[in-house]
Amino acid sequence: MLKDGERLDDLEYKGLKIIQHPDGYCFTSDSVLLSNLINVKRTDRVVDLGTGSGIIAILTAAKYQPKTVYGVEIQKRLADMATRSVEFNNLSEKVNIVCAPIEGVEKIIGGGFDVVTVNPPYDKPILGVTVGEREICRSEILMTAEDCLRCAAKLLKYGGLFYMVNRASRLTDVIFAMRSYCIEPKKILLIQPKRGKNIDTFIVEGKKGARPSLLMPEPIVVYNDDGSFTEVTRRLYNK
Amino acid sequence: MLKDGERLDDLEYKGLKIIQHPDGYCFTSDSVLLSNLINVKRTDRVVDLGTGSGIIAILTAAKYQPKTVYGVEIQKRLADMATRSVEFNNLSEKVNIVCAPIEGVEKIIGGGFDVVTVNPPYDKPILGVTVGEREICRSEILMTAEDCLRCAAKLLKYGGLFYMVNRASRLTDVIFAMRSYCIEPKKILLIQPKRGKNIDTFIVEGKKGARPSLLMPEPIVVYNDDGSFTEVTRRLYNK
Repeated sequence: MLKDGERLDDLEYKGLKIIQHPDGYCFTSDSVLLSNLINVKRTDRVVDLGTGSGIIAILTAAKYQPKTVYGVEIQKRLADMATRSVEFNNLSEKVNIVCAPIEGVEKIIGGGFDVVTVNPPYDKPILGVTVGEREICRSEILMTAEDCLRCAAKLLKYGGLFYMVNRASRLTDVIFAMRSYCIEPKKILLIQPKRGKNIDTFIVEGKKGARPSLLMPEPIVVYNDDGSFTEVTRRLYNK
Repeated sequence: MLKDGERLDDLEYKGLKIIQHPDGYCFTSDSVLLSNLINVKRTDRVVDLGTGSGIIAILTAAKYQPKTVYGVEIQKRLADMATRSVEFNNLSEKVNIVCAPIEGVEKIIGGGFDVVTVNPPYDKPILGVTVGEREICRSEILMTAEDCLRCAAKLLKYGGLFYMVNRASRLTDVIFAMRSYCIEPKKILLIQPKRGKNIDTFIVEGKKGARPSLLMPEPIVVYNDDGSFTEVTRRLYNK
């Protein structure tokens, strides 16, 4: 099942494994966190945009057992690895990896979805940098936060849920795009690396067509002062 | 100096006092917090929108000693009390209370300001409620968050600072309006009543024409578990 240079990483959850290439883009803990903080029901149809290794699609399918999960990925090598990871985990009946740009993907997979998730590229593109797999995953070269919202607005049913993780510095861009595409931010989970530090990450839950009103719970602190995981993080990472 | 039914409240800071009418709107601790979390220089020209009792204009003038502070208030009784409070505190050379709607106020006081502050009405208007002084201060009847931004965009110089305190539930409305009027959110201070509780209030700092990028420090916790003020709050309230 593995091709040259690829490795099989253990997700340490329900025996799940994922194929990654150490030379390319590898998933981060933000995707694991997002998968553990979404509301997905067994009857739901879910789409993960820019799925990369398929991490969010696979964890969502295994954890919530929804009706179906589409993972949309434009980069061929990543989509190929994600497809084989889905097969390896015996999730082919639930998870479909679609190798396509997110723009227009509703023409391939249809609409009326219950949930759309995305861990998008966080950074603005830097001019003069050679563009490879990693840069496409990290910087807004082929997909911006606004692109995700434009696409999610087409994919979601009225009342459907949208989840995005992003850097705290990008909050304005994300909130502005959500409101612009009628996906109202309903809850923002703030992630703080340690007590006393700035908030560095957030996860936003939006609802298509919902009325304005936002909930912001106490931030989630990831590490204790001694560098160990806090209790809440251990629970979220299934450790 | 006091008219019928009015009282003189001690601000417990530099001997400042403020005239209020117990039957009408009285300032809240949010205005005191805002006054203590803004960046104002001695050379600055400042405008406080919807100044009410004049609390923010008076505290700003006394604390930062800027060149000049305008307090704009549409309600005659409040503007009259604010004017007398300014006189009582010997701040008439620095603080000007202008009784006018914020819409078009730039024609009266000019533009090119360094700082605009506002503690606006937080709530959406409720139909069927008798509209009095308090309701106008509390609900978006005569002034909405968006109105404040439209006005601030006209008053501020390029690079000028905007400060608003509001309820956490209104964050999307405020951020969306700021971006819409090219006043970029640069810092959001989150206020949490107690540890373990949701964030209930925020103070946003915006900069006219600035590039996107947002800082979110650790939330400010107001009370300890035993109900006493935390150290940071005591410092902010000058207690």
